[in-house]
Order: sequence, then structure tokens, then C-alpha cells
Amino acid sequence: MLRLFTRSTRNIPLCQRFSSTLTADKYPNIKRGDFGKINDEDINHFSKILSPNQLITDSNDITGYNQDWMKKYIGQSKLVLKPKTTEQVSEILKYCNQRKLAVVPQGGNTGLVGGSVPVFDEIVISLASMNNIRSFDQSSGILKVDAGVILENADNYLSENGYIFPLDLGAKGSCFVGGNVATNAGGLRLLRYGSLHGSVLGLEVVLADGTIYNSMHSLRKDNTGYDLKQLFIGSEGSLGIITGVSILCPARPKSVNVAFLGLENYEQVTKCFQKAKSELGEILSAFEFMDKDSQLLAAQTLKTTHPLCQDDIEGIESVPEYPFYVLLETSGSNKEHDDIKLEKFLEDVMESEIVVDGTVSQDEQQLKTLWTWREGIAEASQQFGGVYKYDVSLPLDSMYKLVESVKERLNELELSSTEDNKKPVYEAVGYGHIGDGNLHLNVAVREYNKEVEKALEPFVYEFIESHKGSISAEHGLGFQKKNYIKYSKSETEINMMKDLKKHYDPNGILNPYKYI
Amino acid sequence: MLRLFTRSTRNIPLCQRFSSTLTADKYPNIKRGDFGKINDEDINHFSKILSPNQLITDSNDITGYNQDWMKKYIGQSKLVLKPKTTEQVSEILKYCNQRKLAVVPQGGNTGLVGGSVPVFDEIVISLASMNNIRSFDQSSGILKVDAGVILENADNYLSENGYIFPLDLGAKGSCFVGGNVATNAGGLRLLRYGSLHGSVLGLEVVLADGTIYNSMHSLRKDNTGYDLKQLFIGSEGSLGIITGVSILCPARPKSVNVAFLGLENYEQVTKCFQKAKSELGEILSAFEFMDKDSQLLAAQTLKTTHPLCQDDIEGIESVPEYPFYVLLETSGSNKEHDDIKLEKFLEDVMESEIVVDGTVSQDEQQLKTLWTWREGIAEASQQFGGVYKYDVSLPLDSMYKLVESVKERLNELELSSTEDNKKPVYEAVGYGHIGDGNLHLNVAVREYNKEVEKALEPFVYEFIESHKGSISAEHGLGFQKKNYIKYSKSETEINMMKDLKKHYDPNGILNPYKYI
Repeated sequence: MLRLFTRSTRNIPLCQRFSSTLTADKYPNIKRGDFGKINDEDINHFSKILSPNQLITDSNDITGYNQDWMKKYIGQSKLVLKPKTTEQVSEILKYCNQRKLAVVPQGGNTGLVGGSVPVFDEIVISLASMNNIRSFDQSSGILKVDAGVILENADNYLSENGYIFPLDLGAKGSCFVGGNVATNAGGLRLLRYGSLHGSVLGLEVVLADGTIYNSMHSLRKDNTGYDLKQLFIGSEGSLGIITGVSILCPARPKSVNVAFLGLENYEQVTKCFQKAKSELGEILSAFEFMDKDSQLLAAQTLKTTHPLCQDDIEGIESVPEYPFYVLLETSGSNKEHDDIKLEKFLEDVMESEIVVDGTVSQDEQQLKTLWTWREGIAEASQQFGGVYKYDVSLPLDSMYKLVESVKERLNELELSSTEDNKKPVYEAVGYGHIGDGNLHLNVAVREYNKEVEKALEPFVYEFIESHKGSISAEHGLGFQKKNYIKYSKSETEINMMKDLKKHYDPNGILNPYKYI
Repeated sequence: MLRLFTRSTRNIPLCQRFSSTLTADKYPNIKRGDFGKINDEDINHFSKILSPNQLITDSNDITGYNQDWMKKYIGQSKLVLKPKTTEQVSEILKYCNQRKLAVVPQGGNTGLVGGSVPVFDEIVISLASMNNIRSFDQSSGILKVDAGVILENADNYLSENGYIFPLDLGAKGSCFVGGNVATNAGGLRLLRYGSLHGSVLGLEVVLADGTIYNSMHSLRKDNTGYDLKQLFIGSEGSLGIITGVSILCPARPKSVNVAFLGLENYEQVTKCFQKAKSELGEILSAFEFMDKDSQLLAAQTLKTTHPLCQDDIEGIESVPEYPFYVLLETSGSNKEHDDIKLEKFLEDVMESEIVVDGTVSQDEQQLKTLWTWREGIAEASQQFGGVYKYDVSLPLDSMYKLVESVKERLNELELSSTEDNKKPVYEAVGYGHIGDGNLHLNVAVREYNKEVEKALEPFVYEFIESHKGSISAEHGLGFQKKNYIKYSKSETEINMMKDLKKHYDPNGILNPYKYI
């Protein structure tokens, strides 16, 4: 339990521009597809499949399903269905496919790219009522759950049994396991436990025509045919609706340490990562970096003393002083051994001047506090009105160059200032999962502004393309990045994806206007 | 370097029945597909794409390409092509697809299910001439290689750079990385480093129509569209020919320990595994079990004293005395810590009487010797004439029941005896990767025999089906298990696979008569 912020505790100021405009109005170029329109007969049909409380038509009750949690995307659905069984999902899709009614599968609705809300009047199929833990095998660590189980609930359940969910992220209190798999969520444990493509052992998926693809296997090794479940991991509900997940969970580590380090430049950050991989090896579980500006932002919302601040003044006066920071976590089975390894590592990096300052958590509370300086950046980035968020993968050596180039560009165009309130941009900051090659670039703004957008795009995407990176490391494509995939994937790859989408969903009813 | 046996050192007695019969004659029910027959014009065409030494038509030179290394499957190909570039593979397939010429992609040809050799006159496309290491990134550990690089060469290269290939298996001296990926090889490091679905970051694949699917990415996280490369991992050359692999490699562990333990029953084996997962956590890198009969077999070929034998008599007299054995390996970054953890673990399992006897390697040589008692079983199983091999995944609690049931059945039918040379079966033995839920059941026989086959099949497959296991954990389907997939996969799953095959290879030219 290292996280302080879950979705429920977030209170983010919303930007005017995004507060109430329908997605359809905001993007007038996107036209409603040639789908059926829901009529009374349809509602009657669904009423036969579902009980009254599983079917929402009241517009007030639907509001929450029509918008993402940042209220950036607002749809116009008139119908929410909340199936309780896989068979019900199958019946629903079978009918929708015949009637060409578009649907949007919705999990915890915590996504950042507008993938889980309708664009027009798509029927929302919420997985919220499918929230049972199906089984857990104590000897193998294999957990089987309904898609609608909340990630934190799954992890708490595992914790009681000495295991850990191989995925963790800020929204764990709200997001669903099914949604995590559908979006191939990355998060904070990927460095240690790998991607969901490795840990998911089986899936239950309902295809566009209602076919139930039951592949809820519990085998670590199974070489009997194409590993079809892989197609649905990260497909964002565009090929089928995930209703069940079978996943291999590792034993819960008995000892966790966190070190917070100050470094003179980005090159030292990458050197530090090399050392950590080599010396901490199997106990290294997170290696996050933050630039100074990200810490300056965080200092203004956290209002506590920065971990590496020399003085003891509380609040924003305690200005972070190093250009770069690293938060490093170890997780192991023996506290004494982990402590020794970490101490030895810290001695080495201090001695070789890779690291110039640092602190290590002495208890659970300190550990949580150190994490807030990493996890608080997302919220802090929005404190002046809004934020343009980029979640990218880049080779390590060019990773921070993107942040520098964006800062430079915004300054050259005189769009950015931390002091002048008339400038649209407050500051661009960089942080992220160095261990996974994943950078978060946040451009904190006072207002959403066409000029800023022009300055950022396609500039950011072209930078990523020229460095062979990915325009979406972990957030996915959704509605927001559908049209930018070309910066990360070749025409052949994109054509193969479109072909696959057409093959599995010929009527295009599954999550239209998004992904591919 | 824990392995003693590579393919080149194996010297396995071949069973008469399998020594020279053509696959086509052995399985008369399988008819040649409606493919084109190679003519002079075709040879001329290929001569324009390839240089003379890349094109083999001499029947003597072709022999090795026509048969698997156990000489169990013998094809009748008249043409072997050895492209040196991806473009050449593309040109070849484009032409073959137009002419409907069937092909079989061939890597190191070390498979166990006849997947890499022709059944009739398919053109062999050997990847042996594509064997360059393309690049290695020291900071991220990402290796890019041609498909034809030998696994051991890749691992040696990584070793020089402080990294390790996340896969290891007995045939490492001969098998190709491309073949490993095409068959989703499991092997000895899976418990620690996970499956190739997690570690492969990108692939270059030539599709049936010659299209080059270049997805040689080097990003640990990339959520931009369907993860298409996953389809080719474990597809055994039936969807495309893998020509390049990008893979994430972990840092090489600095310390390796092996313990060899004696246990009273199978239940204690599973208890011991639980304890090991919990106490050794992040340093546990292998947990293999062997039954007594497997050790008795191995004792007859290894001719050294069994590690847990009380007396010092050399050779077959040193009879293993416990019903079950466990070989447990730890790999970590600190020898002292690993030693302490292992000692503590061994004290615990001895004290709680889970383990009744044991020994720990003191040096590299002892470590290798201990591994021979696990690795030598495959060879030892064939010493009396032949072996029926089953490679299955089963839930841990029912895993050994399969071996017991088979032994019982063979005894009831009076087919088995270690003493009576007239009985076709010598002994059925069980061993395997407990940590991966992967059992190897070897039925050592004096002759291949229809009665034995009838006793074993479909009995074994039905047992696996009723326990929701997999009929192929890591060896794949190939030619041998094509028709048995129904025991592990549902009709829906199989239909989806067939549909996918048809979609990507409408003419069915890629590795026909196999897989699906």
C-alpha cells in the first residue's frame, strides 16, 4: 500500500473548455456512424434479458456513464446496461450486432484517453455488476475474477492470502481488472512483474456477434494453438468485451524500501539506473525519475517539506534544489538482506558521484510520503487550470530530450512563464518510469489554448516518431490518440490492425470512433 | 551454464519403427494437399532471388532437412532455400503463394513434435543463413537478432555484456532464437523470467503473401494498437515466417545455488514448492521434481553415484531411495544473502519434515552434476529402445496422479516390467517443472507397440482434459499433436484459430498438415 491518491480523493480543477461541451460538438468533423437508433422495441428486448435495476434509461442516472472522470469527453448515450453474467453480455451483443446498435464497454471509467465513454449515443455496457472473485488457487497463485472486480479489492484479497496483484496504479480504488486488461495497463509494478501479456493466463471474452470465447485457463504453460487471448489484451474493447480474467499472481514481498535521490543531470539518472539493475537485481521493484520542475509543481500542492530540502521550512518555501530526482523501491523476502544491498548500492552511487544527495524511508509512513512526491505530480500539474499530458515510450538516452525540446519551443514561442499569468503555459515537466522507458510529459497550463496545441502537436509526435518511440506507453489510444497511431506504427501494421478489427467486428459496433 | 547435454552430445538409440519410414507412408490417411509441384521454372525463379549456395537440390544434401533429429518424421522435400535477408524470404513467399507451393520454415530443427520438417514435398525454408546479432542496447538490455541465431550464441553474447537470455533449454547449442519464439519455447528459466509473450518486444515476420510485418520495436511499453506480434509467438510457422526478434534480457545473476532434495511423497513436493516460493521469493529460479523411477532410469545411463545415495558405490548399484526428488535453483545478485536464505529454507523444510534428505552444490562442478540428474532423464528414457513422451500442463494437485494412473493402467494390462524383457514397456516415469505446472511423462519402452499406444491414447489426453490441463505445455502441436488439440481447447477456440489461419494464409501454404 504505497499509494496516497486514489481517484476518489482527487479533486482536480476542471478547465472551462472541457467542462460541459459534448464530444460530438467539440469534434464536429467526426460523424455518427451508420448505426441503428434505440427504439422502444430494443428497450423491451433488453428488459427481457436484464432485470429492471440492470437497465438505466433515466438521463440523470446516465450522466456519470456519459463522461470520463476528467469530464474531458462527454457522450450522449440514452441507455446503460449492467449485465450480471457473461451470458447476459452475450445476449446483449448478439442483439446489438443484429440491430447494428453501437456499444461502448465501460469498466471503472478511469481512463485518460476517452476510451470508455460514448462519443454519440452508443449503448454503455457497464461491467460494474460483474464483480465476483471466481476462484483463487493458493498453491499456484492463480486468481480468476469477473471483469468488474475493482483492482484494489483484488489486491486486498490477494494480500490476505500472501500474494500480490502484478499490477498497481493510482486509480486502483476505482479501476476494474477487466479494464486494466482491456487497456493493457502498465503502472508501478511492471519493472518487477512484467506486462499483462506475460501474467494473464486466460480470458473470457464476448465477441461482437455474442460468441463467448471462454479461455479462462489456469495454466502457466500451454502451447496448444494461437494465443488468441493476447489479441484482447490492450484492444480497448474494440474486438470484444472481456468478462473474466485469469491471472498469475506473485508472492507478496515481505520487505519494501524506498530511497529518494538527488542527481545533477539526466545522464546520471541513466547511470544510476544501470547501477541499480546490476546491484539490486532481483529486488529492484521501481525506478522512477522526476525533474526539478515537477517537484516545484508538487511542492505547491503537497505543501510539505521536500525530502531533499536543506531547510525545514514547511510548504512551498522548501524548494527542491537538484535538477533531477530518483525514487527507487526494493521489494524482497528478507528485510535484512534488502537493507544491506540498498546501503551498499547507495554508498557506491554516492562515492562515484552519480548521486549527490538522498534519503531512505525508515518506516511505512515515510515510505508513503516519499511516494507522494512522485505520485502527486499528476494532480499538481493541473493546479493552474489544466494540463496537456503525454505518455510516451522513448529510448532511455533520448527520453529527457523531449522535455527539453518542448520547454525550449514553448519559451521560444513566448507561451510559457511561471510568473507571468498572461502566458497560457505555466511549465512543462517530465517524470516517469525510467525502468520501463516510459516518460510522462505534462504541460501545465493556465488555459487550454489553440496556440499551445499547435506548438505541441504534431511537434511531440514527430519527435517520438523520429526517435522510434511510442506515442502511448500505457494510457492507450482511445478517442484521443486514434489518429496519431501513425507516429508509432507503420502502414503495414496499421492495415493489419484495421483488417483484424473488420474481421472480428464487421459491423463496427464495438467502441466506434476510437482506437483504430 | 548449467547444462551438460546439448543436442550435439546426445546419442539416442533409435527405434526401428521410426528409423526410415517416410511420414507419408506411416500416416497413409494424410493426403498431399492441392499444392503446386516444383518445376524447372520455379527453380529458375528462385535462382534469380538467391545465390547458388543458398539453394539446395541435391538429394544427399537435403536429407538432413527432411528429417527431425529423432528421425521420427521423414519428409520428401526436393528443395531447400536458405535466404540471407528478410527481403529474400519475402520474395520467396510471394512467389510460393502465387504458385501455391507449400513451404515449411525450419530453424535449428530440434523440435519434438515434427513441426519443422516436411510431410510431403514442401519447400524447406531454412533460416540458418540469417544469423546476425543486429544490435544490443547495454542500458536497456534489449537484444535484436536474426531468427537464425543459435540460442547459445545469443546467450554467450549477452553473458559478455552482463545479461542473460530469458530462456534456456537442453537444445540451446542447436536451436534458433526464431524457432524458440515460433514455438513459444518454455524451458528452464520460465519460472523466473516468465514466458516469451512477456519478454519478446518486437518481431519481424514475413506473411504468406510476402508482406513484411516489421514490428522490431524496442519499447518495454507500447499501447498503440493490437499487439499483433503475439499471434506469431507459438504459431509454429503457420501464420508467417519469423525473421527477426527483439527481446528484453535481464541482468545476469551473480550467484547461483542448487539444492537436491529427497521427499517421502508427492504432497510434500507441493508443500516444498509453497515454502520455496514464500521463503526464497525473488531468488528462486528453478523448482524441478523427479520421481524415483526417473532417477533409477537416469542412474543406468549416468553411471555415477546418485546425489542422495547413502553408499558410495559407483554406477547403477547406487540406487536412489526416496520416492521423490526436487532440484531447486536460486539465482541472485549477492552470494552471501542467497546462501543464508537457502540455508534457512533448508532448515525449515527439514525441521517440518517436508524434506527428509538433501545436498547443496559447493561449486560449479557439483552444480552441473546435480542438474544432470534432472536433465539426463530425457536421454535415459530412451535407453531400452524408445520412449513415448508427453509434455503436459496440469494443476499441481493432480499432476502426479497422471503418472500413477498410467503406471497402474500399464500394469493392469500386463504391458510393463523392468525385469521381463518380453514386456513392451520398461517403466513410466514422471518429472518436470513443478514451478510451471509442467509435467513430463515418459513411457520408456523396449519397442514401439500398437497395444501400448492404445493403452496410452486417448487415456492420457482424456485424463488431461478432465483435469483442465494442456496436452502440450511447451513442445507445441506440430505434426504429432495436431489432432489432439480438442482435448485442451474448446470448439469455439479451435474454430477461431482455424478462422485466423485461413485469414492470414488463405492458400494454406505455410507449414501444412500441422498445428491446426
